[in-house]
Amino acid sequence: MINSYEKIKSLVNQGKHICVGLDTDVEKIPEPLRKLSDPVFEFNKIVIENTAEDAAAYKINFAFYEKDGAKGFEGIQKTLELIPKNILTIADAKRGDIGNTSLMYAQSVYEHFGFDSVTLHPYMGFDSLQPFLNYTHKLNFILALTSNKGSADFEKLKLDDGSFLYQKVIEKVKCWNGAKNCGIVFGATNADELKENIKSFDDLIVLLPGIGAQGGSLEDVVSAFEQNSNKNFLINVSRALIYCDSSKDFASKINSALKEFNKSVQQAG
Amino acid sequence: MINSYEKIKSLVNQGKHICVGLDTDVEKIPEPLRKLSDPVFEFNKIVIENTAEDAAAYKINFAFYEKDGAKGFEGIQKTLELIPKNILTIADAKRGDIGNTSLMYAQSVYEHFGFDSVTLHPYMGFDSLQPFLNYTHKLNFILALTSNKGSADFEKLKLDDGSFLYQKVIEKVKCWNGAKNCGIVFGATNADELKENIKSFDDLIVLLPGIGAQGGSLEDVVSAFEQNSNKNFLINVSRALIYCDSSKDFASKINSALKEFNKSVQQAG
Repeated sequence: MINSYEKIKSLVNQGKHICVGLDTDVEKIPEPLRKLSDPVFEFNKIVIENTAEDAAAYKINFAFYEKDGAKGFEGIQKTLELIPKNILTIADAKRGDIGNTSLMYAQSVYEHFGFDSVTLHPYMGFDSLQPFLNYTHKLNFILALTSNKGSADFEKLKLDDGSFLYQKVIEKVKCWNGAKNCGIVFGATNADELKENIKSFDDLIVLLPGIGAQGGSLEDVVSAFEQNSNKNFLINVSRALIYCDSSKDFASKINSALKEFNKSVQQAG
Repeated sequence: MINSYEKIKSLVNQGKHICVGLDTDVEKIPEPLRKLSDPVFEFNKIVIENTAEDAAAYKINFAFYEKDGAKGFEGIQKTLELIPKNILTIADAKRGDIGNTSLMYAQSVYEHFGFDSVTLHPYMGFDSLQPFLNYTHKLNFILALTSNKGSADFEKLKLDDGSFLYQKVIEKVKCWNGAKNCGIVFGATNADELKENIKSFDDLIVLLPGIGAQGGSLEDVVSAFEQNSNKNFLINVSRALIYCDSSKDFASKINSALKEFNKSVQQAG
């Protein structure tokens, strides 16, 4: 049985830190593909073929598929089958519910689809995450501090002990990480908070969205981890990579763009 | 265009407060149905036929369908088509993500499926909810205090101003309710907190899960609302209703059980 934690360690040791976000939107993919019978799948196929050599992970953003209902869910399955087994797959589904319901969500992402990892909402607490955590060979990325402006509304609220809510989430997730199957989501747009909190992450795997379209800086993220003993981080790039070019050479442009991102990680490190 | 808020007001004015939770699990439905080609759909059909006269709402718990992938998503669509248009439909999907992603989730529940309402995670803040709130004729139930034990982990944390996190969520949701398209989820297992906070709900619609299998008391909920001017509440019953009987007469037993729940609401009120 493949262990997701070991899989990430191996990728990171090869210097691979970029997660390719498959936020595939038919309105944004190159024009000629839109005429095909399953444009989203055809685009994903080209993206995967042109990034598999250099990617650490693929993150499938469920929302972009769910908007097409059952057809979209089939698209997730078909896309997943294209991804080489040595690369981490992330179900970016942001689930979380009471125990018996989370159990069904865990069965969906881990058994029906067979993902290596998932993103989860912490709001409902431990028993809402436990059915996912029971999959000890998988990896559960729990939202800590997200990349959007709204993170100020609740995540950055100060608690009566002086810490922020997102810090309490990180503290709890570390307690729940006995099987080394937990990670956190920490928005790359929060460079200052990243620097201030990075030592508290211990050996949690860190998924950082927010580079590119959302304004986060790859260099800031890498330099923060450079000072840190834990190098288990994944930087997600979605729109800035997969839509980097709309010419007929888009496939090779995506290939070069990912190599550039990897080079930037090396240079900043 | 049907307005979900008006729909609920009309149902509540008829004395209907029970939401039927379609947490349909093939392992739990009566034996003879399990042999059919689509047992979940056949069971839902029987439940809906035997409850439509008395139900205020149907809540489809997405997890129970997603575990079967595309087939499950088709099952949601087919089930939804059976529900009479005067009854509120709730996508119990607990979504929430950054803006461009939440937009896709909103398109999924409101446009692809055509639900009247959805349940949402507040953790990521306003801009994660805004794409749903932009559907002004729909109803967005935002998690405040949930029915599970894990609600103590984060929802009940005390903030530096002395309030609890779930109270801050309620306060914010009221600010976002300009179009009267917001509600909250408040677990029926928290009877004391319900009594203490009910006046602060103003005119938010309140969805209360946690009766029955989870241990919440219908009488406690109804008596709390009895003292209150806002009577816009829905009590969800899932397992305690749809699995109340496994004999060959299960359909009529479900019908009687819902009538009993309605009678209990009247008597407690």
